[in-house]
Amino acid sequence: MSGFAWPARVYWEDTDGGGVVYYANYLRFLERARTEWLRSLGFSQQALAQDPGIVFTVMSLAINYRRPARLDDVLRITCDFRAASAASMSFGQRIYREASQSPGQHLDREASQAPAAADNLLAEADIRIACVDAHTFRPTRIPAHLVSALSGSK
Amino acid sequence: MSGFAWPARVYWEDTDGGGVVYYANYLRFLERARTEWLRSLGFSQQALAQDPGIVFTVMSLAINYRRPARLDDVLRITCDFRAASAASMSFGQRIYREASQSPGQHLDREASQAPAAADNLLAEADIRIACVDAHTFRPTRIPAHLVSALSGSK
Amino acid sequence: MSGFAWPARVYWEDTDGGGVVYYANYLRFLERARTEWLRSLGFSQQALAQDPGIVFTVMSLAINYRRPARLDDVLRITCDFRAASAASMSFGQRIYREASQSPGQHLDREASQAPAAADNLLAEADIRIACVDAHTFRPTRIPAHLVSALSGSK
Amino acid sequence: MSGFAWPARVYWEDTDGGGVVYYANYLRFLERARTEWLRSLGFSQQALAQDPGIVFTVMSLAINYRRPARLDDVLRITCDFRAASAASMSFGQRIYREASQSPGQHLDREASQAPAAADNLLAEADIRIACVDAHTFRPTRIPAHLVSALSGSK
Repeated sequence: MSGFAWPARVYWEDTDGGGVVYYANYLRFLERARTEWLRSLGFSQQALAQDPGIVFTVMSLAINYRRPARLDDVLRITCDFRAASAASMSFGQRIYREASQSPGQHLDREASQAPAAADNLLAEADIRIACVDAHTFRPTRIPAHLVSALSGSK
Repeated sequence: MSGFAWPARVYWEDTDGGGVVYYANYLRFLERARTEWLRSLGFSQQALAQDPGIVFTVMSLAINYRRPARLDDVLRITCDFRAASAASMSFGQRIYREASQSPGQHLDREASQAPAAADNLLAEADIRIACVDAHTFRPTRIPAHLVSALSGSK
Repeated sequence: MSGFAWPARVYWEDTDGGGVVYYANYLRFLERARTEWLRSLGFSQQALAQDPGIVFTVMSLAINYRRPARLDDVLRITCDFRAASAASMSFGQRIYREASQSPGQHLDREASQAPAAADNLLAEADIRIACVDAHTFRPTRIPAHLVSALSGSK
Repeated sequence: MSGFAWPARVYWEDTDGGGVVYYANYLRFLERARTEWLRSLGFSQQALAQDPGIVFTVMSLAINYRRPARLDDVLRITCDFRAASAASMSFGQRIYREASQSPGQHLDREASQAPAAADNLLAEADIRIACVDAHTFRPTRIPAHLVSALSGSK
């Protein structure tokens, strides 16, 4: 079950000479969705860096590439809360290919919330994020209301 | 006057260590808007590559960087038809910063069609595109209906 | 023990607004080193795509980010053969920060083969690569001499 | 006549689904060469940002794309000083394709200093750079010894 989903279109910039999305660029789609998830819950990463002075950094990730994404594909990237410790959180994320859209159709939230068939699953990732002090980069306690917002949205 | 406009959000992937959008990455925003302009007029680049077997390639561009775009900015990228010869077309493109949005607000077409103040102009570009044969890469006549669709949208 | 190592310099293009290398861009460094490893053994990916008509694609990867890489850092990326099945291979890769270089010093192979201290380990990754038919993208047997060249170089 | 030249290899990350280098990515190659030119003259951008507290930013660029660069190409990027005012400098830059190298040959300075035939010219650019205060981002006088080092190297 998905806690949050965000759409993205595949452009030339995302592809490589193999005609599919370059393997590193899936991580850009994953990060966009995590950013929009925070934004949808009212959290600005720039505001958090000011007060209480925290920044999030990726500690580790594991990704399985199941099917390639291609030029013009509309993707749907999901985020699910998994677990939190004092200074880190883990998420599950998936990238789906939406049903192909007719030209000119806009990439909107409604389309992205349509159910996605299992055979359109392109990639699955587990991501672990650390919360660090914006100045010292030392591990820092995650604000409780941020954890409850992210976990409660499941 | 703008023939077409497309929104884009600035993510971490777009910025560099200077805290602003990396100078090459503005060209990715420009290309997204050109692609969406064609799509909005019913043209698929992948379909054109099959029939009549044409591909577009950038011959030259000139860009002035006026103000930097920053993380979380919502940009508005415009496209204006300038001129066409048998096998090339030129466009003017501009990148504006939209008024800042409240967290959670979706990046939609309506917002992107709001008027943009002159002091939010971040970059201006002139782009020249060649139409080439998808196989031989030799200059090829641009389909008349494509030129009239792009120029008529002005 | 490292089977192969390749140097890379960190440029503005690799960093993000946090002042360190963007998390997806470490995967570009990993891929450059794998490409150069094949090249050092006499294999051209473009030639392999022609004869015997095979292409390599990343099936999965797991990466731990230990310390951030920063602008101007000289990195050393290693590749170690782990295992091969009929149609896939797995590698271990590490990214180290080299001792800082004086300005103007060239990034050469000799420097990159100097021993790297454990506290300069920035990232560790396990990568699994599939060998697929260049046209059908179906799993395909890896040529035996390629496996023995990669595993023998350990 | 070239003031400085720097080599670069084209990797998968640089290409797009058209099988050639993505048009924005040529700007990354241009910036690498400018950075290495400064480094070769003993200037560190990070040190300049501390003392005297200046940063360089691209004001404008114009680029002509003549021939596409492809996967595995070895490029040679040149930098020539053109002119300087109090707070800005302009450069001419060119990207050449080197003669193809045998697999396993290292990308070294010697190879990159070989003469490049005119028909291997892939792109030509004019770049204007501003010198700005590292904190206020206001235009700032370029240190005289930096201008003479860059112009004298012609």
